[in-house]
Amino acid sequence: MTTAKRDTYTPETLLSVAVRVFNERGYDGTSMEHLSKAAGISKSSIYHHVSGKEELLRRAVSRALDGLFGTLEEEHARVGTAAERLEYVVRRMVEVLMAELPYVTLLLRVRGNTGTERWALERRREFDHRVAGLLKAAAAEGDVRDDVEVRLATRLVFGMINSIVEWYRPDGRGMGEREVADAVVRLVSGGLRGGAEER
Amino acid sequence: MTTAKRDTYTPETLLSVAVRVFNERGYDGTSMEHLSKAAGISKSSIYHHVSGKEELLRRAVSRALDGLFGTLEEEHARVGTAAERLEYVVRRMVEVLMAELPYVTLLLRVRGNTGTERWALERRREFDHRVAGLLKAAAAEGDVRDDVEVRLATRLVFGMINSIVEWYRPDGRGMGEREVADAVVRLVSGGLRGGAEER
Repeated sequence: MTTAKRDTYTPETLLSVAVRVFNERGYDGTSMEHLSKAAGISKSSIYHHVSGKEELLRRAVSRALDGLFGTLEEEHARVGTAAERLEYVVRRMVEVLMAELPYVTLLLRVRGNTGTERWALERRREFDHRVAGLLKAAAAEGDVRDDVEVRLATRLVFGMINSIVEWYRPDGRGMGEREVADAVVRLVSGGLRGGAEER
Repeated sequence: MTTAKRDTYTPETLLSVAVRVFNERGYDGTSMEHLSKAAGISKSSIYHHVSGKEELLRRAVSRALDGLFGTLEEEHARVGTAAERLEYVVRRMVEVLMAELPYVTLLLRVRGNTGTERWALERRREFDHRVAGLLKAAAAEGDVRDDVEVRLATRLVFGMINSIVEWYRPDGRGMGEREVADAVVRLVSGGLRGGAEER
């Protein structure tokens, strides 16, 4: 199942195994036994690194959340018109989703049964809220159509972006990261801007 | 759990209970015992109506698929420019999704472990392919931007539409069906058409 030797195990490699198993079996359906088997190390070895599966979940979704929130601190997310910043953040969201695919996939599947899951949902809502704020600002500046309510537009745009985890595979055989990011930016920007010929 | 009496049970009411349980527990995680408890009737009473849970799954996803394929036969899906027909089908897809919410939700969660599931996936692909054909025709007629590949655009548009099952609830407190359908049509049409000011 793995070629890693016991003494080469680090919290990082353990995390990548755990995320794979969480995504395959669901977090609720994963036991320490499953993680032990998938990692090829004993349960006590896992406890040497982490306090349990909830800590692994927290580390995994933190990686996704740090990537997403990090984009909001980048220069192009802070300087320019709201429409320009929004377009930049949409592109970076897609890039982070593809670069951290298993971590973002896990984040999107979190349901809220444990404290860590509820915390993750709360952070997701916070991120959505920040992006909705950009959309609202772009609408106020007249660069986004005013016939679609901001909250609804945000949901639909996130729906399009998040759906990428269902089919994108970074195996080099399918579509490239750049092509996917360009497509999303074009569809979202065109959609939000509307057209003069719109009824 | 239910107020229906044994002798008032019909395949229809049994189906709606089964779909709810499938969506809550997952199809794989649902046993005839779960269905029996949720419906408040014995397993043998269920077998009086259907051959087992796979038949219930087939009936449920058929209802969603019939709704979706039905839209392609409607007049406005057959007459007009490809862009007009596409816009009509996008609107009707959203309407069917909201009208048949639990059935479409189940269809979108099908994974392909049984023959019925693989059949449902095949039918979904066929529907996607029909819509992609409309998009391709609209591009050929010059009404859809040519800088986003048709297959990728189809996936992203379906991603946006299908994501509605995650948050739409027909309880009258949230957004109305008309508002959601209008928003999707506007974002999708604007996005696919592109804008002159697009880079």
